Amino acid sequence: MTDSRLLLVIDAGGSHTRAAVVDPAARCLGYGESASGNATAVGEQAALRAIDSAARVALEQAGRSAGAVTRLVLAAAGARGRLTDELITGTVGLDADVALQRTGDVLAMYHSASVAQEGMVLLAGTGAVAGRFSALEAERVVDGTGWLLGDSGSGFWIGRRVARAAVADLDGTGPATALTDLLLGEVGIPRDAALEHGRPRVVDALVHRLYADRPVALARFAPLAFRVEADDPVAARIVAEAEDALVRLLRVVRDGYAGLPVVVGGSVLVAGMLAPARSAGGALAAELAGADLRYARDGVVGAAVVGLLTDRIEVTEADRQRLAAAVADRQSVLRAG
Amino acid sequence: MTDSRLLLVIDAGGSHTRAAVVDPAARCLGYGESASGNATAVGEQAALRAIDSAARVALEQAGRSAGAVTRLVLAAAGARGRLTDELITGTVGLDADVALQRTGDVLAMYHSASVAQEGMVLLAGTGAVAGRFSALEAERVVDGTGWLLGDSGSGFWIGRRVARAAVADLDGTGPATALTDLLLGEVGIPRDAALEHGRPRVVDALVHRLYADRPVALARFAPLAFRVEADDPVAARIVAEAEDALVRLLRVVRDGYAGLPVVVGGSVLVAGMLAPARSAGGALAAELAGADLRYARDGVVGAAVVGLLTDRIEVTEADRQRLAAAVADRQSVLRAG
Repeated sequence: MTDSRLLLVIDAGGSHTRAAVVDPAARCLGYGESASGNATAVGEQAALRAIDSAARVALEQAGRSAGAVTRLVLAAAGARGRLTDELITGTVGLDADVALQRTGDVLAMYHSASVAQEGMVLLAGTGAVAGRFSALEAERVVDGTGWLLGDSGSGFWIGRRVARAAVADLDGTGPATALTDLLLGEVGIPRDAALEHGRPRVVDALVHRLYADRPVALARFAPLAFRVEADDPVAARIVAEAEDALVRLLRVVRDGYAGLPVVVGGSVLVAGMLAPARSAGGALAAELAGADLRYARDGVVGAAVVGLLTDRIEVTEADRQRLAAAVADRQSVLRAG
Repeated sequence: MTDSRLLLVIDAGGSHTRAAVVDPAARCLGYGESASGNATAVGEQAALRAIDSAARVALEQAGRSAGAVTRLVLAAAGARGRLTDELITGTVGLDADVALQRTGDVLAMYHSASVAQEGMVLLAGTGAVAGRFSALEAERVVDGTGWLLGDSGSGFWIGRRVARAAVADLDGTGPATALTDLLLGEVGIPRDAALEHGRPRVVDALVHRLYADRPVALARFAPLAFRVEADDPVAARIVAEAEDALVRLLRVVRDGYAGLPVVVGGSVLVAGMLAPARSAGGALAAELAGADLRYARDGVVGAAVVGLLTDRIEVTEADRQRLAAAVADRQSVLRAG
């Protein structure tokens, strides 16, 4: 007799929503994407529409109806969801008795790269957060407290420092740095040393331009620091201080647990501090020397692993890898289309 | 024959609008106050209403009609006003041929404490800015580039660091600091070390509370750093770094001009770094040793001095002091009432 259980897995992120239909053998039967499903970011109605849209595409691709789903796993940021269970299951058209399992986005990122039920994750994208998990529960979660109060070492943290260094350079209060021309190039403002009302015109133009965006948009300048850190002392100091902050974060969850797997993810780590191209490994690479290190995959993969483990289905490392490869395949087809 | 010229002076700030009617002998004939007259902060209509209201009260107290005004001086932040000259003079009911003179708020703060046409000012309240002026023109203005990109050493800068230090202390990523209990006390959140979903409950509560305010509201925590700097290394470092930033700011406008008067203002300087109660003078006090130091008064006083000087009326230091005392008197009557 075949196992008729069927998971609908949804990762509702700040920029995309991803849905997958997964069977008990950890096969991805269908996959769908849509816009942000984060109710805090886009509002409840838009979030519900995104969740519904991604789910419908995934179910259609799987050739299954919503009635076939036996469990819905929803990964999202924040412990308190603004959307009630009834709103979500109702929108997707699931049977009334289908359980909705909510899981944190940090746990989902951990399990995207590990099926071990004990381990930890360090993520540094726009924000920064670390967590240690055991049996699908968070034992310790650190930072992730946002751009204004925390996220030390994150893309926003680095990008803000890059922007401030460029403004200070142009304003005459900080040292000259290669970051200035890189940043002016990114926003398309030419250098102009002429003073107007006692202030360099370029300072006014740059400040006006950058305040027109949301504060977190400064995260887009983080890659500039990595680009010139080898030759520019200002950039090197920003990266070194970010790296120290992330090492502190990791230590809070890792001290006493050095043997457990460490999943890393986010552009600051993958394309920055731990990038293969970075000649000299920094403080974070040194901290992680000898660790059982893995790179995070898509959150929807981790949410699927969480759902399968919750159903007490054994998930092997080979299962996880196949699932991650299947999701990556569907994504590359969507990107190509 | 008496000089019939009459100035209407308005300082349209982010929290208050202040208006004064001043005659050529630098006497304050009338004074009025109202809400914010900053169009960027409150919108054009509300700003015009505030300007009109403060002006009417001042004119009524002076026993003069709007038709008697020969020049309107408007001090406001930002070079480009959103309100046109016609809108402002029309709202106040001035004759069509009355000149509207706009002046920067930083220049007005300088002249609130000095009638010398060459000198400089360093202000550190919520923001931070320095300027050097000559003949009513800005020769150099530095920083004042706002909470996200500049304002290094300002009340926001210090308050943000205080809040981050407290969050990091509670989250386990930063050192213990006396700032934590002070800040929890300010916002009325009790310490609670219990973990929920792997995170100290108090971190969630504090973060939730602080993100509910506008970012610049963090400036209200700046005084906490000064309160414990003598005994707390974390607070001492925040204050020392803020002080270094303000010294850098001052040097940009002061290098080569050490003999000119220096006007200082804003709570970070007056109640903090340069407060008489501060036992050991810090880096800023050392930098200013021997300087011709003055403390800023109300911006409307400086705007009046700017207006009188523009009319080529000689303004003595005694005139300025009398004007400042008159404005302070009217303000204390209003506060008492």
